[in-house]
Parts: sequence; C-alpha cells; structure tokens
Amino acid sequence: MGERARIARFFAPLAAEEAGSFFLTDDAAVVMPPSGQQLVITTDSVFEGIHVLRGATPQQFAQKLVRRNLSDLAAMGATPWRYTLNVHTPHNLSDAWFAAFATALAQEQTTFGLVLIGGDSTSGGDVIHLTMTCFGLLSGLPLRRNGAMLGDTVYVSGNLGGAAYALSLLQHKQPVEAALATRYHCPEPRLGLGTALSGVASSAIDISDGLVADAGQICVASSVGMRIESSALPLQAGLDARALLFALSGGDDYELCFTAPANQHSVIEKLSMSLGIAITRIGVIVAGDGVHVIDANGAPLTLAQGGYEH
Amino acid sequence: MGERARIARFFAPLAAEEAGSFFLTDDAAVVMPPSGQQLVITTDSVFEGIHVLRGATPQQFAQKLVRRNLSDLAAMGATPWRYTLNVHTPHNLSDAWFAAFATALAQEQTTFGLVLIGGDSTSGGDVIHLTMTCFGLLSGLPLRRNGAMLGDTVYVSGNLGGAAYALSLLQHKQPVEAALATRYHCPEPRLGLGTALSGVASSAIDISDGLVADAGQICVASSVGMRIESSALPLQAGLDARALLFALSGGDDYELCFTAPANQHSVIEKLSMSLGIAITRIGVIVAGDGVHVIDANGAPLTLAQGGYEH
Repeated sequence: MGERARIARFFAPLAAEEAGSFFLTDDAAVVMPPSGQQLVITTDSVFEGIHVLRGATPQQFAQKLVRRNLSDLAAMGATPWRYTLNVHTPHNLSDAWFAAFATALAQEQTTFGLVLIGGDSTSGGDVIHLTMTCFGLLSGLPLRRNGAMLGDTVYVSGNLGGAAYALSLLQHKQPVEAALATRYHCPEPRLGLGTALSGVASSAIDISDGLVADAGQICVASSVGMRIESSALPLQAGLDARALLFALSGGDDYELCFTAPANQHSVIEKLSMSLGIAITRIGVIVAGDGVHVIDANGAPLTLAQGGYEH
Repeated sequence: MGERARIARFFAPLAAEEAGSFFLTDDAAVVMPPSGQQLVITTDSVFEGIHVLRGATPQQFAQKLVRRNLSDLAAMGATPWRYTLNVHTPHNLSDAWFAAFATALAQEQTTFGLVLIGGDSTSGGDVIHLTMTCFGLLSGLPLRRNGAMLGDTVYVSGNLGGAAYALSLLQHKQPVEAALATRYHCPEPRLGLGTALSGVASSAIDISDGLVADAGQICVASSVGMRIESSALPLQAGLDARALLFALSGGDDYELCFTAPANQHSVIEKLSMSLGIAITRIGVIVAGDGVHVIDANGAPLTLAQGGYEH
C-alpha cells in the first residue's frame, strides 16, 4: 500500500472529528482553539529500543507515544485537545502493523479526548521512530517548574519504581506480572490531578527521567534545594532490593512531583480522595540547590554504582 | 556538552521572543494566538540523504527544514508564527554543528517572523533527522485543494525544474552555478503570494513532489481533470535536454500551483507585478480526472523512462 493510501485508510479516520483537519488531504490543518483558551504545546518522540522495547507491539508504541506527551500536558495543568504525528518506519513494515497502530491510537483518542489533525510519514532505517506534537487547552494559569518556595512541601502522586522494575525484568526476559508490565508499557498521565493543581501547587513536573533528576529541574527553575526522605517514598509494591534505586532514578513512572505551601495541605488531601489517587508528602523545599535524599535518621544517601547508599 | 546544556546554549535564545516558551525550560509551551486568528498547523521532516544531501551543511538543513514547512503554510494562505523542533542526531555530532545550525535557524526566524517554542532531542543512528511542526496564522478563508472548477485557469508561480536539475548535478558531483544550487538548497516559500490569493484562487498546492504529482492532488480533491500545455511551462533558464522531465516531475521547486476563474485573471496579473513574482498560465481545469500534459499541437505527452514523450 502506498503512503497516500495508507494515510487515507488508517489515519484519516482518526481526523474525522476535527473539520479543520480536512481528513488529512490538504497542505495543513486549520483550527481555532475555543475562545479564551490558551494553547499548551509539547512534543516528544518514541524510538524503538529507547522508549519502547525492540519489537514492541503497535499498541505499546501508540500508548507510550500518546502518554509521554500527555504527561507533559498534565504537568502544566492542561487538557488534551489535538495532535500531529510523524511516522518514520522501516520499508517492510506491514499494513497489519499500521492497522493495529491506528486502532490503538483510536482507543487513546477516545480515552483522552484527542483528535489527529496532521502529520507526515517517511520510510527507511531499521527501527520505528514516532513523533507526536500535542496541543492542550488551558483557561487558567499553567503549572510551572519555577514557583517552589522555601518551606513548601514536596509531593508525589501514585507510587514509584514500578516502571523501571518492570523494564529491568522485561530486558532480562524474566516473568513480569501484567499489572507491573502495564506500569512500563502504558503509563497513566495524571491529567485530572494536573488540572486540579492549578492555583494549589507552587510548582510541578512529571517524572519521566527519574524522581531525583526531574525534581532537580524544579530546583534549578525555582533556585531552591529539595530534601527528600527516602522512608517516605511511596514504593510500588513487590519491588526487589533495588527498590530505592528504581524509585529515585528509574524514570518512566510519569507520576507528578509537585510542591505546595503548608496551607494547601488539606486541599491536596481532599484532591487525593476525590480523584482516587495516592498523594504522598516526600520532602521539603530548602535553601541551596539540588535534590538531597536522606534516610529516616536524617543521614544523606548518595547514588553509587547499583544503588543508593550512605 | 549534555543535552540540557546544548538546549540552553544553542536553542533557548531562539525562543526568547515568545514568553510562553519559558526559554524551553518547562514541560510545554503556553501560547495564545492573536484574537480572531485561526491556527494553521503543518509538520514536515528533513532526513539527511533524502531531503538534503548526505553531509549537507547545518545551514542547508535549517533552510530546507524551515522552507519545506513554510511552503505548506503558503499553500494555505497562512502567515508564519511559531514552531517546534525535534532533533535526532548521531552521537558524535559536534557542538560546532549545533552552533551553526542554531545560527542558521536564527536567520530563518528573522526572515520569516518565526519563534521557536519547544521541541525535543535524541541521539542515535548515523544520519541527521529533523522534524519541524509549524504554526501559522490566518484571518480569512484558507486556500484549499478542493475548490477547482471546470474552466478554471491553472497557474504556476516562478519557474520550474531548477531544483531537480541542480540536484541531478550535485548528485553526480558536476559543477553547479550558485543561483541554481540555491534553487535546491534554499527554496523560496511563496508566502506573500499565498496570502494574496485568498479569495482569488479557487484551489492551491505547493510543488514539492513535482508539478504533475502535486497538481494531481488538486484534481483528486476537486474531482476534476487538468490539462497542462507543456509549451506554456515556465522553465528555469539553462536546463539541459531533461528540462520537461525536471519541470513536470522533478519536485523541490516549492512554487505554488493554483487555479482561478477567468474573471480573476487581471487581479492575478496585478499580483504578479506588485509581488515581483512571475505567474504563468499553464493549463485549464477540465472534466474527468488526473493531469494530462499536451504539446503545442494538442497531442498528449506521457512520462516514460527518462522523460516525457508522445
């Protein structure tokens, strides 16, 4: 099937709900964000062998691509709206692959309220490489990384370490429970929480590279330091001896790490209950710079080969 | 230099003019299109060895990437506004390459009124692969491909065949005059013409894949046929015996092909003069489907191995 036929067959139906996509038959899309709404724009790629496993299923590609991008919207407090897609695939990839990929994208669109509005496709190379540029809507102030203040509490949503643990098992072809594998293959962007945190959190970021690395970006942007208590971390159940390493440095959890002043604590507890998402206090914003992890006795832990230690 | 340092050093300055880019330090950009303006969105990639030559200069990458995208905006009648950038480069690419690439992008931004607002970067593979998603503004009706009517005149801007001829010389390492090489390396998106054609042209497309292929998309979208007179084609000066082949099938010229009813002809002649762009009548919209090329005697020409013939 040629490129145009493939677009018409598999991708044009994904554009049906936005008239300005012109069913992907024109030079560009023409859209009008709803009146008074700001447009929140992010873009992220998924490479076979980097962001998904070699030989990942079409569904795994679609879910990781969409959710990586939506996690960035969540961290800004935005609501998903539209997206474009760049598809770069090996020459020999089958029509069945594209059919399954489009089916999975359609499911993601329904789940998150997205509509495809454009893209391009090229063939070549020996790995699949996808890029999504995602457009969200925002009526209030965005959550930023730069608003953390001295004394603010540091929170994290959900639990940590599951995605990295699942990946380590998958890479070594060891058995993985389905729920754990899902943490890696199909992360849950915290969109409802992100929207609710507008006006509540003083800063926020999503955890894609690992808690310490990403929380460190809040420190850089806010010109503050952060102390995290390792004993307070909400660890994914069933992790092995590397639990702390996975939780602090593993990445791929796509939970939100955010800060808020003490007077917002009861609001955040109510949010946790109403959204049904665990939200845990893991630390505090301090003077200085960088993320400092301490144990239950207040002694610093440092990352060394293979794990965190004193 | 690490990824974050590279972004801060080379790419963040390109985002300075849009406050909502947050200097590329946050999870997403937050922008607000000017009141009443529609957003026109297109995305296109540039692969080393496909859209630019292997070993192309950083400037050639930047110019081709930006102009391929802007040509799509021109074909919709939109004005350039903002863009995101996905940079996928081999591990060993030097900081000097990124510095030169950013300098060339800065020049393109100044030329076309663009501002960078986001992106991502990954390393790997052995060729450079860039993706741009470009946002234009449009206050009136977009130029579409689907409005060509029976009897409409078919026009083309500038002249044809130069880019493909330059490419054939460059690929065979033959000498190429600078002005001709520029046709391939640095096409001129017809933005002023595109804007002016709103309400004048009945359909439009930019010529990236070759006149016959792209004009054929107008035929498909408008459910019409097109007759093109080969003797009327505005050939680039100095082409060799393959002139007709380059002009009809060569691609990369990024001129606009458009249609308009007879009563717009004087308007188009005035546009040509005021913009200083040659605009040539090359054919007519007819019943049926597809693009039919005829010679000065009305005899059909068909594309065969190596050229057009009777």
